[in-house]
Amino acid sequence: MEVRARAPGKIILSGEHAVVHGSTAVAASINLYTQVSLRIAGDSESGDRLLKLQLKDVGLEFSWPTGRVREALPELSTPSASSPTTCSPEFMKSIAALVEEQNIPEANGGLAAGVSAFLWLYASIQGCKPATVVVTSDLPLGAGLGSSAAFCVALSGAFLALSDAVSWNVDLNHPAWLSFGENDLELINRWAFEGEKIIHGKPSGVDNTVSTFGNMIMFKSGNLTRIKPNVPLRMLITNTRVGRNTKALVAGVSERTLRHPDAMTYVFNAIDSISKELSSIIQLPAPSEVAVTEKEAKLEELMEMNQGMLQCIGVSHTSIEAVLQTTLKYKLTSKLTGAGGGGCVLTLLPSLLAGNVVDKVIAELESCGFQCLIAGIGGNGVEVCFNSRPDFF
Amino acid sequence: MEVRARAPGKIILSGEHAVVHGSTAVAASINLYTQVSLRIAGDSESGDRLLKLQLKDVGLEFSWPTGRVREALPELSTPSASSPTTCSPEFMKSIAALVEEQNIPEANGGLAAGVSAFLWLYASIQGCKPATVVVTSDLPLGAGLGSSAAFCVALSGAFLALSDAVSWNVDLNHPAWLSFGENDLELINRWAFEGEKIIHGKPSGVDNTVSTFGNMIMFKSGNLTRIKPNVPLRMLITNTRVGRNTKALVAGVSERTLRHPDAMTYVFNAIDSISKELSSIIQLPAPSEVAVTEKEAKLEELMEMNQGMLQCIGVSHTSIEAVLQTTLKYKLTSKLTGAGGGGCVLTLLPSLLAGNVVDKVIAELESCGFQCLIAGIGGNGVEVCFNSRPDFF
Repeated sequence: MEVRARAPGKIILSGEHAVVHGSTAVAASINLYTQVSLRIAGDSESGDRLLKLQLKDVGLEFSWPTGRVREALPELSTPSASSPTTCSPEFMKSIAALVEEQNIPEANGGLAAGVSAFLWLYASIQGCKPATVVVTSDLPLGAGLGSSAAFCVALSGAFLALSDAVSWNVDLNHPAWLSFGENDLELINRWAFEGEKIIHGKPSGVDNTVSTFGNMIMFKSGNLTRIKPNVPLRMLITNTRVGRNTKALVAGVSERTLRHPDAMTYVFNAIDSISKELSSIIQLPAPSEVAVTEKEAKLEELMEMNQGMLQCIGVSHTSIEAVLQTTLKYKLTSKLTGAGGGGCVLTLLPSLLAGNVVDKVIAELESCGFQCLIAGIGGNGVEVCFNSRPDFF
Repeated sequence: MEVRARAPGKIILSGEHAVVHGSTAVAASINLYTQVSLRIAGDSESGDRLLKLQLKDVGLEFSWPTGRVREALPELSTPSASSPTTCSPEFMKSIAALVEEQNIPEANGGLAAGVSAFLWLYASIQGCKPATVVVTSDLPLGAGLGSSAAFCVALSGAFLALSDAVSWNVDLNHPAWLSFGENDLELINRWAFEGEKIIHGKPSGVDNTVSTFGNMIMFKSGNLTRIKPNVPLRMLITNTRVGRNTKALVAGVSERTLRHPDAMTYVFNAIDSISKELSSIIQLPAPSEVAVTEKEAKLEELMEMNQGMLQCIGVSHTSIEAVLQTTLKYKLTSKLTGAGGGGCVLTLLPSLLAGNVVDKVIAELESCGFQCLIAGIGGNGVEVCFNSRPDFF
């Protein structure tokens, strides 16, 4: 039995940082994916009874005898795919032991958490069956594009797709990406959130929700509202490759808020207003009175305003400003996305923009050492495919 | 009889544009001056009875026979220096005729208004006496540094200093800059405002008030409050040399306000709060609990916040961003000053900043084609000197 699952990354369209202080934020899926292939060995298959995990992008492979997994996590021999549960400190200890046996290179420190999440999700959903799991991703790691959530969602999607918890009433032989039903998506999302907790400690749940359901979500004070975009959007995502300390950036904004409570409160209110306007423009029925180019111009203005606010609260960075300067030369509008202080910058690519302009901007940004990705915004969430597609990996 | 007067230029420290929408703004004088030397020919002096105006910086000289001035403006033969009056449309016509006779080069179109203001102020304060007036200036023209106000204030100061309206009870032979008394300053300011009206049509009165009284002023909804700084501030003023259309920039902000009333109202409120904070930091008694470096750090943060707001409302420019990027490399904080869209950028030069860093920043900015000026902020207003100073021009 074999399945492939893919789950999208995400961007924050507006409201990053301000959301911590009660403002509305808007996140969207991007058509850059983390892809998981899962092959569960049949009872009749010969060979080692191993649970294998291949992380293609970092060129690492791990494997555990299934007996060793059963020994470490005996309670999970009978999985409970339909009841997402939090990995307890006791289970975490056993999983840590399984991970330690793999001698993960120290330079890949963050990887151990991902491997732990994998083990928890697999054993909880599929038990201790021998299987091979291969992971690849379009998403740069640790750049604020939701790579860890996409990892957890794709794993949960693949594991659940071959579990009793999900049933399919479509032709599985059709070589196409298939969507899950609403209840199945809820289940995937809850499992992915458990994986995210292992990786991040206290995730907001935004990243896994966007990756699971796709489209966009508004979030404010912990409440998530899914919204469906009615305008096709394309963004250039420039990864400055400058690592950030998200916690320090968040703390910096809080300190500035303590120093200038009045001004900062107005700023957060302004950002809240920008997020709301942005989400209503995005949801305007299409075809509507407002043409696509007009919507794009409005979104550009809101992005420019939001970027000004982000500079105001002190989370920009010289690398971000360099990207802004470069795209401005081509009359394109940009804003940082996520924590700032480096990370990624979004640039709206209007639908009528000439391809050679895009090529020129990218060439100039890449010559500065930045990584450029082009992504459609607000598309599908997690999907699976049961039939082999030659162009898959 | 001879006198020299100098009047400072100004910068907007915070609140430009937002002030149009009801926020507080703060302006300050800078120790860059427009200087006027006035020599009134004694009755015993021989030679032509001419009124001469030399504008040294543009290399132009104008002169009128005093008889011609009396013929054009007979009502002003008896001047009324102590009662500032507005140039009526009839007087304006006569002055326009006097200016036209001078064949001002077309490329210097804006100059005619300045020459008109000169004629109105001179004839109103000094009547039709023969005199030679020489003007030089440290201030770039049309760059938002209040050059026209400094011109009007320096002229008014020089003309009034030798009029019956002002009396001196100090030793005029002392070769030093002398300040006017409070009532005299009021008079100078009112006359300078009449000159500004001829040049600008509807000036706010901020520029001439700062140039007359020096120090700083807060202004909001047409009300001006003079404040006295208690911290020595030094700024690098970078003139991008990019000409701006102030009216179009102001209109652009108003249009954006119509499109996004909620967000923009919050932004204007935030700027109001920033201006108030800035003025209270500047007025903190010195020596106070708060050390100069700490005050500077606070001002830098407020400048950064204000600049973010200005980007938010859409009045930045690629040349301004280039200056910001450059100064940021040296960990210096900058903001645009005035209308934006080009014009000038302020960079705070902390008191402990090494001189070679300043040299490097200036070299880098000048290599981009920008003009750099260093100025002390919030110093004296208009002053006069009755004794020759060899280093004057």
